[in-house]
Amino acid sequence: MTHAKDDRSKATHQQTYLDDFLYVVDPNDDVVFVSGIRMHQIGCVNSHWLIVILTIRLSVHDKDFAIVGAIPANADGITYIYGRQSSDIRSMEAGSIDAGNVEFVSQEVMIVPSRWVYTNHLIFMDAEYEFTPPMVEHFTPYHRYSFICKTGVSDVLIGTTSQISDLNGVVKLSHIKDKLVEMTNLNETIWGSSLGLASAYEGREMKSDVQMNDSIEAYVCKQNVTQFPYEIASLAQDLEGELSVTMPSKLELEHSDVGPLIRKFLVGHDDANVNRIKALQLIKDMTLGVNAVGYLTESMHGARDTEP
Amino acid sequence: MTHAKDDRSKATHQQTYLDDFLYVVDPNDDVVFVSGIRMHQIGCVNSHWLIVILTIRLSVHDKDFAIVGAIPANADGITYIYGRQSSDIRSMEAGSIDAGNVEFVSQEVMIVPSRWVYTNHLIFMDAEYEFTPPMVEHFTPYHRYSFICKTGVSDVLIGTTSQISDLNGVVKLSHIKDKLVEMTNLNETIWGSSLGLASAYEGREMKSDVQMNDSIEAYVCKQNVTQFPYEIASLAQDLEGELSVTMPSKLELEHSDVGPLIRKFLVGHDDANVNRIKALQLIKDMTLGVNAVGYLTESMHGARDTEP
Amino acid sequence: MTHAKDDRSKATHQQTYLDDFLYVVDPNDDVVFVSGIRMHQIGCVNSHWLIVILTIRLSVHDKDFAIVGAIPANADGITYIYGRQSSDIRSMEAGSIDAGNVEFVSQEVMIVPSRWVYTNHLIFMDAEYEFTPPMVEHFTPYHRYSFICKTGVSDVLIGTTSQISDLNGVVKLSHIKDKLVEMTNLNETIWGSSLGLASAYEGREMKSDVQMNDSIEAYVCKQNVTQFPYEIASLAQDLEGELSVTMPSKLELEHSDVGPLIRKFLVGHDDANVNRIKALQLIKDMTLGVNAVGYLTESMHGARDTEP
Amino acid sequence: MTHAKDDRSKATHQQTYLDDFLYVVDPNDDVVFVSGIRMHQIGCVNSHWLIVILTIRLSVHDKDFAIVGAIPANADGITYIYGRQSSDIRSMEAGSIDAGNVEFVSQEVMIVPSRWVYTNHLIFMDAEYEFTPPMVEHFTPYHRYSFICKTGVSDVLIGTTSQISDLNGVVKLSHIKDKLVEMTNLNETIWGSSLGLASAYEGREMKSDVQMNDSIEAYVCKQNVTQFPYEIASLAQDLEGELSVTMPSKLELEHSDVGPLIRKFLVGHDDANVNRIKALQLIKDMTLGVNAVGYLTESMHGARDTEP
Repeated sequence: MTHAKDDRSKATHQQTYLDDFLYVVDPNDDVVFVSGIRMHQIGCVNSHWLIVILTIRLSVHDKDFAIVGAIPANADGITYIYGRQSSDIRSMEAGSIDAGNVEFVSQEVMIVPSRWVYTNHLIFMDAEYEFTPPMVEHFTPYHRYSFICKTGVSDVLIGTTSQISDLNGVVKLSHIKDKLVEMTNLNETIWGSSLGLASAYEGREMKSDVQMNDSIEAYVCKQNVTQFPYEIASLAQDLEGELSVTMPSKLELEHSDVGPLIRKFLVGHDDANVNRIKALQLIKDMTLGVNAVGYLTESMHGARDTEP
Repeated sequence: MTHAKDDRSKATHQQTYLDDFLYVVDPNDDVVFVSGIRMHQIGCVNSHWLIVILTIRLSVHDKDFAIVGAIPANADGITYIYGRQSSDIRSMEAGSIDAGNVEFVSQEVMIVPSRWVYTNHLIFMDAEYEFTPPMVEHFTPYHRYSFICKTGVSDVLIGTTSQISDLNGVVKLSHIKDKLVEMTNLNETIWGSSLGLASAYEGREMKSDVQMNDSIEAYVCKQNVTQFPYEIASLAQDLEGELSVTMPSKLELEHSDVGPLIRKFLVGHDDANVNRIKALQLIKDMTLGVNAVGYLTESMHGARDTEP
Repeated sequence: MTHAKDDRSKATHQQTYLDDFLYVVDPNDDVVFVSGIRMHQIGCVNSHWLIVILTIRLSVHDKDFAIVGAIPANADGITYIYGRQSSDIRSMEAGSIDAGNVEFVSQEVMIVPSRWVYTNHLIFMDAEYEFTPPMVEHFTPYHRYSFICKTGVSDVLIGTTSQISDLNGVVKLSHIKDKLVEMTNLNETIWGSSLGLASAYEGREMKSDVQMNDSIEAYVCKQNVTQFPYEIASLAQDLEGELSVTMPSKLELEHSDVGPLIRKFLVGHDDANVNRIKALQLIKDMTLGVNAVGYLTESMHGARDTEP
Repeated sequence: MTHAKDDRSKATHQQTYLDDFLYVVDPNDDVVFVSGIRMHQIGCVNSHWLIVILTIRLSVHDKDFAIVGAIPANADGITYIYGRQSSDIRSMEAGSIDAGNVEFVSQEVMIVPSRWVYTNHLIFMDAEYEFTPPMVEHFTPYHRYSFICKTGVSDVLIGTTSQISDLNGVVKLSHIKDKLVEMTNLNETIWGSSLGLASAYEGREMKSDVQMNDSIEAYVCKQNVTQFPYEIASLAQDLEGELSVTMPSKLELEHSDVGPLIRKFLVGHDDANVNRIKALQLIKDMTLGVNAVGYLTESMHGARDTEP
């Protein structure tokens, strides 16, 4: 998604290492060789193409970095460095109740091309640094508005929290309902200020026939999506009752002596032991574990990787 | 700390399993045998004694559960079931940069006595259910006030966040300073309304010569400590810049090809690579990893396990 | 808008005085006579018609109160009791700088019919108490969604606050801009989750061909509009710098000795004395004065007079 | 309390009018004549002495403004310009229910000396501009800590809100109690982080034997007192139910036809009409009227008139 942003008090061309950005090493007739790095790229290892854009304004001094283009994700010479996520090792415990929601987890990587080759017909910006401001300004509303996706993630968390409140026998209490309503309210506020539903509805057609969504509402979506998932996650931990973080693992659950004790004590208001433990596991995954990265931290930063 | 609270819509004696609470199985002349369970006990596996109290009011119908006493932590017949924490496996990677702050991590366990034996001189309440309300009311202010300890944890997190902001070259920007100030303000508000510093200062001496701290201020401490660490953690993730959750592991750092790339790109505004990675690791531990359990979830629930 | 809600712990027919609600005194062939009271009716003294609806569910016991109809606002026998608003007397100082934004102020009244006469063709519900739940459920989304209007009021307040920040010479400071942005963000969040723009966009056509807006988004609009105007108003007072509440009146401004002193000292960063005082006056009106009633308190309560 | 702060982007000696600050016009052997202005001075018209301090750091260029001293409040040649407050005219309706809490209202004035005369033994700083930073740093913790006083004001508002909730028949509802608890929590947080109670408890003795309270906790007190009274006031308006701003005046209450209607309809859950109206009046005074200036706006600004 973005460059390494090493020393953010300096301009692009003033960084200690040029490689903090992608830059042109050698332009030929047909191709352009670039070097450098891209950080925090969500989902790129399961993509077909990488489209590398710029997320900051560049000046004339940064001209060599004004390169935008597309390249197949499996092109030669690209190193992907996979980020380590919270509780990632247990994701590999296939089929275990501890493994968590591994089918739907996101990942983020660093991308390091040894020598990145753009063929000319797939280069969209080549040294035209003066177009970096409008590029950032047009990309940003699209990107921010896309964070509507987090509301689907929140729906899963809110539903699970409602279920565990029910299993705890407290779902009808006024203060529990108030918190479930507040979770929903925060989530629907993101939804309302985001999709169609405001930013899209107020969009306009540009000269190019492209539909451009409204940037003010997209900004509001970003402001809200950097905060509300954290509040929703905190309310989920509040309502689940601490067990998600003190719960024994599958080894204890399957143990001949200890397992029956746990199943007995964590029974909830009916015999729904397994559902209860699954619900707790999902809340843990989404608020502290492998899914928290995508739901929380990425909402915080992804929503503002570009600052127009 | 507390009982299993299985179905919270029912009274103690109405639970499906009596074992959700400790209860008297067999009182003899010299000893009392109890059975049942205790949950979420922080730090008990490195304690010498377990002092088991009650955290709810009991009625005459719950008389058999009104048992309070002390027992050596290594007494025969106690099963400790250790909770699984976020990112706990990597805690075992001794000496690795990924292992995190394992020297200072907390743990929580379930305690299941097969037959718990109190000797009579270590029993402090025996069926006197009518004293459970004052017991809860007196224990609660002490317990809530003790959450002052979280402010020391916050200090570590705020300091680390300040350091990473400096390494990112942004610490002098007005909006970064505002957020560091807000983290401090939230933390000092807990401190001020808690230790000495309000609850203790307004304490009073009881007939027994015991100093009793002020319950209103202790309550305020609890309200704040269930919320502010989450806000402080969110601000820490905000300021660190996403790398804490996308950062490669020690395996990549030590790899002959990839390691030098990472060290180069994550350099920050000086050559303090290692400090930067350590700071990021600590922020991850405290906001999503093994230390988050104690800093966040336990602050939420520990501060209110007893509701007077 | 609503009934007197005197003792809210009792059902309609259990109130001390039947007159707390409108109720049928005497149904004739052609007309229905009702008595009772309606409270908090915004803008009714400059309306042509009063359409009286119900804002609570009624049971069979409350049947006599299930009366909905229309009546000309100037019909005989209606007493309007005008509410007293904050700083209302100075509204009558016509032409004075102290009078405030009196041209655009709202008002609220109590409506007391001595004997209210509905002609039959203008009665929309007559004892069909079983339709009061759907009536409330359909009216509520419309009503809540209409609170989009407050965002226009906020725009005036945000613009004025920006102007006074400029006149104070501080508008370019980072923390001032942050607060102006936050005011805008809160306001656009209401806008986005409300008009069209979410609730309307997600509306649906009912069997009757009436377009019904989405109730979840309308609820979110209500939740936000009961809180955010208070936050925006607080930020406006923050940024204006206290002078709005300590500013002398027109009498001092026009006084031969004192007037020149004030004009000199309140000059701002250019000679825009009058603009500065006008801007301060408007902020006072909207946050504490005659306009605060409509902007703040009515947003709080109007948005939820009906609770489905 | 403070100078006029006209154009805050300029230093003291760069302001358009020197009179924005007090400055030395003519130093004689025995007395010093100063001119200029002081703003927002709370309570000075009922004080015996004015002690004029500096609330900003001065440089060598601002030397003429580095004058601190004491003068009798009734000295010749001082003009007091009384600020106009929200709903102030009705304060003069002596004995009326509409007059509000006029016995305990604050006031703020501009102070303009034609020629201010300090006698030498009452001058505490005379051109020693280099001591203005420590002066500000020492004054600030005292001043901020003094805002503990607002918690007493909040107590009145919380009590009144509790009373009106009772009269409305809703005080036992869970969500009403939650809001009353939140009001108390916010207020006690100010109290705890402020008096003794933290800032004072952590104070230290200076070389001069003066006790200096802790500046961090005083800062926290200021941060909280600039925000929480607004939240408490908003909750008070929430719970009172809108009537405070739509309530008729004493003229209607005393009117032969209308008065009995109002008394009948505003009866609450018992016949406590008068108490109900008085409680509503007090809430209006404290959140929008003449007492709101001291409780809200002054808390916002008074708590930070000096920025160290």
